[in-house]
Amino acid sequence: MNQLQLDPATEDEAPEDAGIAEIANLVATGEMADAVVALDRLSPDSQAEAVASLSPELAANLMEHVVEASAVEIIDHLPTNVAALILDEVTSDHRADLIAELSEANAAEIIDQMTPEEAADARTLMQYASDTAGGLMITEYVSFQADQTVRDVIEDLAENADEYRHYDIQYSFVCDGERLVGVLPLLDLLLSKRATPLRDIMVANPISVLDTMSLDDVEDLLESHAFLGVPVIDAQGDLLGVVQRAAVEYARSEQQRSDYLKSQGIVGGEEVRSLPLLDRSKRRLSWLSVNILLNIMAASVIAFFQDTLESVIALAVFLPIISDMSGCSGNQAVAVSMRELSLGLVKPNEALRVWFKEISVGILNGFTLGLLIATAAMLWKGDAMLGFVVGFALCMNTMIAVSFGGVVPLILKRAGVDPAIASGPLLTTITDMCGFFLVLGLASLLLV
Amino acid sequence: MNQLQLDPATEDEAPEDAGIAEIANLVATGEMADAVVALDRLSPDSQAEAVASLSPELAANLMEHVVEASAVEIIDHLPTNVAALILDEVTSDHRADLIAELSEANAAEIIDQMTPEEAADARTLMQYASDTAGGLMITEYVSFQADQTVRDVIEDLAENADEYRHYDIQYSFVCDGERLVGVLPLLDLLLSKRATPLRDIMVANPISVLDTMSLDDVEDLLESHAFLGVPVIDAQGDLLGVVQRAAVEYARSEQQRSDYLKSQGIVGGEEVRSLPLLDRSKRRLSWLSVNILLNIMAASVIAFFQDTLESVIALAVFLPIISDMSGCSGNQAVAVSMRELSLGLVKPNEALRVWFKEISVGILNGFTLGLLIATAAMLWKGDAMLGFVVGFALCMNTMIAVSFGGVVPLILKRAGVDPAIASGPLLTTITDMCGFFLVLGLASLLLV
Repeated sequence: MNQLQLDPATEDEAPEDAGIAEIANLVATGEMADAVVALDRLSPDSQAEAVASLSPELAANLMEHVVEASAVEIIDHLPTNVAALILDEVTSDHRADLIAELSEANAAEIIDQMTPEEAADARTLMQYASDTAGGLMITEYVSFQADQTVRDVIEDLAENADEYRHYDIQYSFVCDGERLVGVLPLLDLLLSKRATPLRDIMVANPISVLDTMSLDDVEDLLESHAFLGVPVIDAQGDLLGVVQRAAVEYARSEQQRSDYLKSQGIVGGEEVRSLPLLDRSKRRLSWLSVNILLNIMAASVIAFFQDTLESVIALAVFLPIISDMSGCSGNQAVAVSMRELSLGLVKPNEALRVWFKEISVGILNGFTLGLLIATAAMLWKGDAMLGFVVGFALCMNTMIAVSFGGVVPLILKRAGVDPAIASGPLLTTITDMCGFFLVLGLASLLLV
Repeated sequence: MNQLQLDPATEDEAPEDAGIAEIANLVATGEMADAVVALDRLSPDSQAEAVASLSPELAANLMEHVVEASAVEIIDHLPTNVAALILDEVTSDHRADLIAELSEANAAEIIDQMTPEEAADARTLMQYASDTAGGLMITEYVSFQADQTVRDVIEDLAENADEYRHYDIQYSFVCDGERLVGVLPLLDLLLSKRATPLRDIMVANPISVLDTMSLDDVEDLLESHAFLGVPVIDAQGDLLGVVQRAAVEYARSEQQRSDYLKSQGIVGGEEVRSLPLLDRSKRRLSWLSVNILLNIMAASVIAFFQDTLESVIALAVFLPIISDMSGCSGNQAVAVSMRELSLGLVKPNEALRVWFKEISVGILNGFTLGLLIATAAMLWKGDAMLGFVVGFALCMNTMIAVSFGGVVPLILKRAGVDPAIASGPLLTTITDMCGFFLVLGLASLLLV
């Protein structure tokens, strides 16, 4: 815990210490949202110190509310034995997500120090991608054997009431050995005689999902049924856990968030400003440096038409406008395609259908925008031909932009590339090149 | 129902009819996700026809799965009496959202034809903004009086089992008259003697939220507690409904989605490509036409430096690069601010803190990007001074971009303007103007 052995005379010590004390108070009174904000204000070392000063239960509770990127940073700064104690207490699905983000060496060391049961659980859940039923499920559920009676269940519930109070026990599950054979609405339990075996009152052949089922498919299933959760089984039919509706909605919200951040160039995972400066700079640069190369490539088109530019210098004013407006139109089409893909309203192989829907919008909008820019050019220079050149170029390039914008996400998805990251840069490179070529090519024919 | 009286010989009739039959089959077998896709493939008239051909219960179920913008379009195409029958069956929170999106005249006419109970319910829920507890709650809950006994409750549950099966009844609520006085975990009911009055086993003074509480605050509350739902009360303490955790997660997901779409220029509400062409074109143009004016304004800076450009025509190649790269850097900062605002990690009045965090990244990234573009310029033209001008301009403008990008969402939020819509256009206008001025101003000093 070398971070904690800092010279006590360090300049920042006093306010950071106050922050650590404040967090302990907020966590103790259950004000988790405020505790998270206070934690975010501290340096990574102090964040770890604050978390380590809490009981493992409270620390786990706090860690479940922190942004994942910050939580991973904090665990990295904790001694592995402290991290293991805390992770023992984190809910099973969060735990697996956090451990999966740690460096392999650190993860292995921490798992070794966890209680054997939780460690085994973490190893199992880590094998699932976070957007599968296995990755979404929690392993905290209540199950009974089919030959147990209502009385057995009620006695068990009474005995373990404290533990179960934190579970979602609208349903409990009925198994034959490990195999899921029924679900038992709590309501039905209330309405039955104590000596009835569960087999007689359970809902047999319950709807369940395979551990490998995708988030999209689990979502579709929950859309078609009013369940608050659905049991997860493996290929043998053995019960593994339960996916709650709230977990599915949360995962979808995280996916929307991630798509938004990626589309704006935050690509290496979430950024909060309490993360170390160099990490933030490096992550952003990784995306910016690809973009600057693409930009230079696109702008090189301009260099080919240097003579044209020299004779009609006014064109230099319109090049950035054409570039930016085509990017805007294209990004609208990208956003609609991303959304329709995520809703399942369009399949990656329906590029032609999308193109048809986009080009019709592109003709209308291209014509309108072209007319606007042509008017502006004529008003400024009194040159009808200049107006025609920039207007026609923007009109054509708007059609190109919406066509590519609509189709590119589908093609990228088919090719297995994340469309949220790659669509924007790919689109603007294409539209910039086409736009510059259209303006300057037309000008060299009509204006020089 | 004039849409349904189309000439049966219309060209598209056959495939559209097949689609309508397919939807009825898919809905009947519970394959809602597929039914939604099939519905999306039809024209608005046929969509309405397909929905009208279902029983009100099934139609309501289908409508709950359709994108809101499409659902509103469909209701607009239905005769009001059919729409009223269907809306009677839609869950209370969805119903209020849909009616709120209809034109006022249409909404009034439909509500008049709904059953009085559902109509009153809809009128009440419509008064709440969709991001408040009142707008998020459902009014389908189970409640009892404090002086009723466990036996009373069990008898009521048995009697109404069919109706309650669709409710979330992990908890039922205990009232004194209308006033919420306790919650009753179903589990506790199981463990109590039949003659016990609820007052003796309920959890008294339960945590509840006011109907006016914001989504953010409800979310904070659910983060601090493991509840699957929380009761909603009015200022008098009367029970109004229940907000489920899944509804909060869903609302958050919708907000993320909406921020993403707005940032990409889809601003007038969601767009799916089955919406009418003119609507889609008009909505996109409303945003594009603002952007083209801002673009022309920004590019007018270039016109002031026409002489400089004429003598160093190579600069025309770098103007779009500087404009685009500054936009990229700035948008990264916007995205992080949007995210920190939505997480509550930064308050709208903490602009100085954000600026401090951004400028440090801006110095590092500006220096790196400036060096890259300077190198490219020197390699191309062999002119060190040209390299210095474009490199220094990009470096400075990156710092400007991240500063504005980080701070603009906070300022807009404080001013009550939606930062998801306005941040991008505002940012790129500022960075374009500054970028063009830096490149051309420096060039006029150093290169001419």
